[in-house]
Amino acid sequence: MIVLGIDPGIALTGYGIVEGKGHGLSAVAYGCIRTKPGITHSRRLMEIFRSVSDLIIRYKPDAVAIEELFFNKNARTALKVGESRGVVILAAITQGVKLVEYTPLEVKQAIAGYGRATKGQVQGMVKMLLHLDEIPSPDDTADALACAICHINSEGPLRYLVQGPEVVTPGHRMVPAGRGEIVR
Amino acid sequence: MIVLGIDPGIALTGYGIVEGKGHGLSAVAYGCIRTKPGITHSRRLMEIFRSVSDLIIRYKPDAVAIEELFFNKNARTALKVGESRGVVILAAITQGVKLVEYTPLEVKQAIAGYGRATKGQVQGMVKMLLHLDEIPSPDDTADALACAICHINSEGPLRYLVQGPEVVTPGHRMVPAGRGEIVR
Repeated sequence: MIVLGIDPGIALTGYGIVEGKGHGLSAVAYGCIRTKPGITHSRRLMEIFRSVSDLIIRYKPDAVAIEELFFNKNARTALKVGESRGVVILAAITQGVKLVEYTPLEVKQAIAGYGRATKGQVQGMVKMLLHLDEIPSPDDTADALACAICHINSEGPLRYLVQGPEVVTPGHRMVPAGRGEIVR
Repeated sequence: MIVLGIDPGIALTGYGIVEGKGHGLSAVAYGCIRTKPGITHSRRLMEIFRSVSDLIIRYKPDAVAIEELFFNKNARTALKVGESRGVVILAAITQGVKLVEYTPLEVKQAIAGYGRATKGQVQGMVKMLLHLDEIPSPDDTADALACAICHINSEGPLRYLVQGPEVVTPGHRMVPAGRGEIVR
């Protein structure tokens, strides 16, 4: 199973393609879609749409996973992030790929085993689960990978097993049944 | 000059196509894109994208005009409206149509002559300027028409003249030079 996780934004949109095979997870590709500050806002949205569409065409994921966001602070930021989310959702649906959404709590539970994990703990677990040499940066990339892992873990039986302080015992399902919004 | 005004939302997206000829304005078509509540959120965004694209293909507007929004209240609502705005902007840009944005203040000034006009005053002026029998409803439709009129008025010389309490004297330019974000 291949999942494309996306962390939408206007200047930076993180992406991470994760493959789940048997009990292992691997990062197929990850990075950031950076839109140039000099171009218009609409062009930026177009670039995000095109880049996400290209990622889908190239890696043929079984699903696109994004975080369901709740903002308490800045409504202006929420509006801008919403615009980026809108074009990401449209890219998934026009390519006929299933779209799933997870709350930040679900992502944290899936990655670190409990919903109150810190950002640093989640990022450390992303690095460990994907056998990476370092924590992917910027945060947007790590968050996108976390979201992809969350979906892989929420589908079917437990697919990974980690040694260390955050031991996951087989049979313990970390994420409740995927409450993603399914399209298609 | 033909302008498509859009008031984006998830359940309701108002649209209004206005033509400016000489000193007159006329409403070519207007209404609401209503997405069904039973379908997924992503499907709704897809329907908005398709409907706006269809309107552009059908009426070949010279520009698509939307309001630049500022929310003070609900960030969650802002996020959802942002998603709708994102797909509307994408529809304009993929069809190669210029996109322009106006602040609520600019729209009110263009329609009612001053920035503190009430919603009712703006709607009354939309009805008058477009020679309609009644105020278009719901509000989303009237707002979309207002935005289209605002753009027509902000381009080139003054194109309309109204008799009544809100007399507009020729030579008085109601809107400052269009500060829309221009794509293409």
